[in-house]
Amino acid sequence: MPAQRPVITLLTDFGMCDSYVAQMKGVILQKSPDAQIVDLSHEIPPQDILRAAYLLGDSYPRFPRATIHIVVVDPGVGSDRRVLCISAARQFFIAPDNGVLELVLRSAPPEAMVAVTNRWYFQKNVSTTFHGRDILASVASHLAAGVKLSRFGPPVADPVRLQLPQVTMGDKQISGAVIYADRFGNLVTNIERKHLAQVFQGAKSSQMLVWVGGREIRGLWRSYAEQQPGELMCLLGSSGRLEISVSGGSAAAGLDAPRGTPVEIARL
Amino acid sequence: MPAQRPVITLLTDFGMCDSYVAQMKGVILQKSPDAQIVDLSHEIPPQDILRAAYLLGDSYPRFPRATIHIVVVDPGVGSDRRVLCISAARQFFIAPDNGVLELVLRSAPPEAMVAVTNRWYFQKNVSTTFHGRDILASVASHLAAGVKLSRFGPPVADPVRLQLPQVTMGDKQISGAVIYADRFGNLVTNIERKHLAQVFQGAKSSQMLVWVGGREIRGLWRSYAEQQPGELMCLLGSSGRLEISVSGGSAAAGLDAPRGTPVEIARL
Amino acid sequence: MPAQRPVITLLTDFGMCDSYVAQMKGVILQKSPDAQIVDLSHEIPPQDILRAAYLLGDSYPRFPRATIHIVVVDPGVGSDRRVLCISAARQFFIAPDNGVLELVLRSAPPEAMVAVTNRWYFQKNVSTTFHGRDILASVASHLAAGVKLSRFGPPVADPVRLQLPQVTMGDKQISGAVIYADRFGNLVTNIERKHLAQVFQGAKSSQMLVWVGGREIRGLWRSYAEQQPGELMCLLGSSGRLEISVSGGSAAAGLDAPRGTPVEIARL
Repeated sequence: MPAQRPVITLLTDFGMCDSYVAQMKGVILQKSPDAQIVDLSHEIPPQDILRAAYLLGDSYPRFPRATIHIVVVDPGVGSDRRVLCISAARQFFIAPDNGVLELVLRSAPPEAMVAVTNRWYFQKNVSTTFHGRDILASVASHLAAGVKLSRFGPPVADPVRLQLPQVTMGDKQISGAVIYADRFGNLVTNIERKHLAQVFQGAKSSQMLVWVGGREIRGLWRSYAEQQPGELMCLLGSSGRLEISVSGGSAAAGLDAPRGTPVEIARL
Repeated sequence: MPAQRPVITLLTDFGMCDSYVAQMKGVILQKSPDAQIVDLSHEIPPQDILRAAYLLGDSYPRFPRATIHIVVVDPGVGSDRRVLCISAARQFFIAPDNGVLELVLRSAPPEAMVAVTNRWYFQKNVSTTFHGRDILASVASHLAAGVKLSRFGPPVADPVRLQLPQVTMGDKQISGAVIYADRFGNLVTNIERKHLAQVFQGAKSSQMLVWVGGREIRGLWRSYAEQQPGELMCLLGSSGRLEISVSGGSAAAGLDAPRGTPVEIARL
Repeated sequence: MPAQRPVITLLTDFGMCDSYVAQMKGVILQKSPDAQIVDLSHEIPPQDILRAAYLLGDSYPRFPRATIHIVVVDPGVGSDRRVLCISAARQFFIAPDNGVLELVLRSAPPEAMVAVTNRWYFQKNVSTTFHGRDILASVASHLAAGVKLSRFGPPVADPVRLQLPQVTMGDKQISGAVIYADRFGNLVTNIERKHLAQVFQGAKSSQMLVWVGGREIRGLWRSYAEQQPGELMCLLGSSGRLEISVSGGSAAAGLDAPRGTPVEIARL
């Protein structure tokens, strides 16, 4: 009997127009009726593994110990791609082996990692197009009910890794990229607090110059409220990444800076 | 005292911009604070009873025994249309009597069926425009708390039935129709595994020819990954229905095949 | 040990594309693993305090005693605007001090009201852009776990108030405004049942004349089903407000009547 209700999160590209998400929840509740199920997001653009990887990486540290994260962004469903079940950072991650766990693997060394192969823990009739329901949710419900990770299949040492856009550091400069825009039109970059700390130690905010999408932005703000409405600004977002924003507006709408757009930073 | 937390699902055309769904949940939690509430979907196009009927039919078999499904797609709210509470497949269904339970009725003979009339189980002031909250959610919360179905009102024997698009079987052919497109642009049809089994027993995949929206598709694939990206394909989807898909793309975007479009299949 | 699971609702302008909502839930579950978390809505247009205020005001009365409502529509995040924690109507409300609690304050005299300042109950590293996670959700999780309101900070007597569009009453007329459109295109007004009762006591429905967006509507209907499909109508909506609707259609699509559009009513 677990001491408290197991937490299970779902991150998919299913949207909420169909009942795919609900079907996964039905399967989970069959074995784990007490589960605390949280929608991480279901609005990942279809098959956008990179976006899901970042969302998961930014979110999982906020969840309690033993949380089970299920990720179903799975263009290879029905092929021979593996399904992984990983223990890391004292939480669990169940996902197709397509790189979607990249940010987890980079931030927390896995404690255990198996390929999910034991059909005992699958639904009875496994479809070829919806492993999210028939395999991943099913396995998660057993994991939540107390089954050991090692029961699901053999150890794996070579998960598929995802190529991420690089951050390049110079003495007085940093090169990175826009990795996604959020709902508010904030452009989130792959440049993190640690990168800025390295180049700007002892510097004033005004010594920071940022180029992105043909625009130049000076200084690092602390909050949206500090900048004039409608003006571009840079700040450290809530996941510790440099973000390009427009106070009271949308940087994504104002700049031509889709994912992958270079972001150049210099110390004056 | 129920042995485990009651599961209650909600299927509506309310969307999530307003607070209608939340108000229903508030009412449920008043009487059934321990309920495990699952959003089946709230993105049914306004008053699209047929779409809701299919979503419910495809989803309910995934849920545990005693789950209570509430459906609020209710163009007749405030008129004298009845509200039904049905027990079938060892689960419960509460819905306006407008045909939205058609797929349930076809797949599982009802164990009991009543018209919900006992105002004792309604909210105190019943609005004329939101029975989902004031009647259906309220009754569900009592049902979850252990009240017997028969307390809600008198037995009903003649629920409103929904006309569904027909599947016509020949010796070597099947005629059906597109019933909806899902988020990925898969065109889901009313042709089921059993229909295909009848005509294609002993046949090779290459003996199947499908016409839909002016296009011809040969063969039945097992998974998206087997077809070239961008190419049309047919496969048996996760709810056991024939689906027209584009590998890594959207069949709905590529074909002019809205709901009701004929789908013709022949055995070569 | 609380007698039952604490209910916590979330009302934000975060949408569900990102993981902001999920991050708040992760924080809540850290301290309050048994919480019953309900999404009130996350589709508030970015920074639309007025819309959030109305949604909250219309919804909170449906929730059980001791429910904790968290509102994060927070254009001033990171500035020196206060965060409030209020007890009213035997429920709790945690929100930035920007007027978003206006409808609560008008309908229920606060039993207690504090400014949230005690960092003991915050997350360890408070970001400047996501107080919803680092302060509001964190404080809510402690409140749900039994911490007294007074522990969060000093009493407050002067919450920021929101200017709402006025209703003006005459002997035989009422002037109000459209306050929002819902998903179905119903135009919800600030004219309430009590206003109509005052002017139309003893009157027949046909004595009511309404002007809005250049159109004239006669009579007050009881339900959508009473009017011809496609025709304009007025009725008292589920939150007790006068609504302009089109039976089986969208009044918002048919009328040019955005928020703030005057609504004039006369008794003939």
